[in-house]
Amino acid sequence: MKACIVAVGSEMLTPFRQDTNSLVVTERLNQLGIDVRMKVIVGDDREEMAGVVRAALDWADVIVLTGGLGPTADDLTREAVAEVLGTPLEIDEAIVSRIRDRMARAGFVMADINRRQAMVPRGAAVIDNPRGTAPGLWLEHGRTSLILLPGPPREMTPMFEAIVRERLAPRAGEGGLFRRVVKIAGRTESDVDARAEPIYRHWRDQAVPIATTILAAAGQIELHLSARAATRAEGDRALDAAVAALVGELGPSVFSVDGRQMEEVVGDLLRTKGLQVAVAESCTGGLLASRLTDVPGSSAYVERGVVCYSNRAKVELLGVPEQVLAAHGAVSEPVARLMAEGVRARAASQVGIGITGIAGPGGGTAEKPVGTVVVAVQVDDDVRVRTFTLFGDRTQVKFRATQAALNMLRLMLTEPAASR
Amino acid sequence: MKACIVAVGSEMLTPFRQDTNSLVVTERLNQLGIDVRMKVIVGDDREEMAGVVRAALDWADVIVLTGGLGPTADDLTREAVAEVLGTPLEIDEAIVSRIRDRMARAGFVMADINRRQAMVPRGAAVIDNPRGTAPGLWLEHGRTSLILLPGPPREMTPMFEAIVRERLAPRAGEGGLFRRVVKIAGRTESDVDARAEPIYRHWRDQAVPIATTILAAAGQIELHLSARAATRAEGDRALDAAVAALVGELGPSVFSVDGRQMEEVVGDLLRTKGLQVAVAESCTGGLLASRLTDVPGSSAYVERGVVCYSNRAKVELLGVPEQVLAAHGAVSEPVARLMAEGVRARAASQVGIGITGIAGPGGGTAEKPVGTVVVAVQVDDDVRVRTFTLFGDRTQVKFRATQAALNMLRLMLTEPAASR
Repeated sequence: MKACIVAVGSEMLTPFRQDTNSLVVTERLNQLGIDVRMKVIVGDDREEMAGVVRAALDWADVIVLTGGLGPTADDLTREAVAEVLGTPLEIDEAIVSRIRDRMARAGFVMADINRRQAMVPRGAAVIDNPRGTAPGLWLEHGRTSLILLPGPPREMTPMFEAIVRERLAPRAGEGGLFRRVVKIAGRTESDVDARAEPIYRHWRDQAVPIATTILAAAGQIELHLSARAATRAEGDRALDAAVAALVGELGPSVFSVDGRQMEEVVGDLLRTKGLQVAVAESCTGGLLASRLTDVPGSSAYVERGVVCYSNRAKVELLGVPEQVLAAHGAVSEPVARLMAEGVRARAASQVGIGITGIAGPGGGTAEKPVGTVVVAVQVDDDVRVRTFTLFGDRTQVKFRATQAALNMLRLMLTEPAASR
Repeated sequence: MKACIVAVGSEMLTPFRQDTNSLVVTERLNQLGIDVRMKVIVGDDREEMAGVVRAALDWADVIVLTGGLGPTADDLTREAVAEVLGTPLEIDEAIVSRIRDRMARAGFVMADINRRQAMVPRGAAVIDNPRGTAPGLWLEHGRTSLILLPGPPREMTPMFEAIVRERLAPRAGEGGLFRRVVKIAGRTESDVDARAEPIYRHWRDQAVPIATTILAAAGQIELHLSARAATRAEGDRALDAAVAALVGELGPSVFSVDGRQMEEVVGDLLRTKGLQVAVAESCTGGLLASRLTDVPGSSAYVERGVVCYSNRAKVELLGVPEQVLAAHGAVSEPVARLMAEGVRARAASQVGIGITGIAGPGGGTAEKPVGTVVVAVQVDDDVRVRTFTLFGDRTQVKFRATQAALNMLRLMLTEPAASR
């Protein structure tokens, strides 16, 4: 089955906003084995929208439209679709009272304008919107199903989930496109591809074919595998073997095969091993602590963080001696090590991390250019210190530095020799 | 003039990749007064691509296609466009030798497959690609100009700049679409719209018409104004008046009219006033320090940050008495105040900020539900403390809490009475 996703809203035709609903919709459709062949972004213009829907009806089995279901004169998705299908719009009094009740509960009187949201093309099924006033609509026309959903992602997402569960999944059958993402840290894209390509090149022609894409994201390389299979079990079997082959080749640089982010992987290791971590950050300015604490439940293992942007803070909060700062400079291996040791000792935690570097754009020198970052990680008595040269702008250097630190800690906690 | 942007590439129809070229292209087209009416993302499929181009020829003055100009069999943009225009593709030997030379300089021998990149629809102008092997193409068909550019943004962007300069700007004249963004904190979307709508509703019909869109982003509301004017001076005059009217109505809740983010606005205030800031964070886990230090040059005013996730850290690093923690709980106005005062005193800075709260998903109670956040800001002798109830998931609560804290500080630093 082929799908077309149409995002409606003039704001998504500006340089400031992008459609993101289509990513969520694509993922769920793909899981059902439905191919997204085209995405269109169109403004709040009835004629243009109608032209897009008319063209998609020629080839699409599923058309998902998001946006343009609000109460104002700008909201024209209902009208455009009704026009193309040649169906009259009729007011649905049940929807009117649902909207009125909903607004009354929030202390508002329903405005007349909201009646527009109760206009339904004849024959459409109404999809309840638990988080807003705009109901969704499901229509069938020839072989094509049309799905109209509101634009705000927090309203759209649960409504689309309900449609998948109740209407699309039952017809899609068991087969589909099944995915796996292998995330790798500490290797370049070309190195990963050179090692992985001789493995994945053969997957396209096997019984359950797997397509592989390599993507470079900030601080990590990702291999995206998608298997087209008749059943989930068959897809899982092929993907399990594929992932195992990649992990065998790429070794411990693979940090995630189950969707987890680096901070979740490290968090799970800390929690499982009953370790507490304390971090001392200079150039990353709090981003490492913030990433660690993005994980729900991280208060179980994050003891404290210190952002010591000034040398005075490094001396006062971590006990880094002024002589060491003067002799080696703030961005140096001895200072990073003393930061990790200092914050760990003060927190009485098992793990301490110190990061110091030059995030740019200013502050670089010939000897220590922008992007020079020193990371020290201490786990119990074991201290490792590494100097990295990271590229990118200020926020990229910050992110890559936190990624490098988390990866060093991850490797220390997963070493076969580790008795921890 | 109306434009259609077509992004070609099956990877942009997965849940993992989005077209971003269109944002750059839209911005430059808008500056020339060219309206982007539609964006289409289509896979590496010749027929589907041809259908899209055919449909756009009906209405678009400019069609920009990015992607699908590589050397492999998947790269079909040239073929699809030639098919629609009914023009033969011919090999351009000048392009072949440019590609051969380019590859020779990099130490490679040109493969036969690269000759595909030298196929040019008859009558097309070739656009030099200084950063890659795929040349761009410019074609005219009736009233429509078609522009074919390679997909990688670092190749596409300078090539499109050259086209704008040499081909589009001379015909577009001086006029265009000019934009301004007004950013507002501390008000709801409906409150902003209720106040702003009576003002902006009249702008559509004035001599220089201004279109206004309201957008809710995390922690802020944005009003996007775009004026269509015959000259930049005329556009600026209309937008200056419009922005002044909005600021007059919305008052100090407007924090930016020049594109700056909240952390840049606050950073500029701190720098100008010669103040240093120190922050103590619990539920935001370092995000406030990280946002402050995202700004280049922030080392001039960020003295330190402390992430005190544990109560012990609050006691040891900030001097919050255990009795206060026991009596009021960690999430309380007295504790937030003592955190701000404690970090400020230890840093000997003028400004101190304390944040404590419940980011969720766990940890909420009936009295203090998830999203309860207390912020204290001290500037010299002036301390303000506020309790917020923020919505969203964990990362949204973290972000909104930092935004609330930055906004409180901003308001204290810009009060008319402030002698600072």
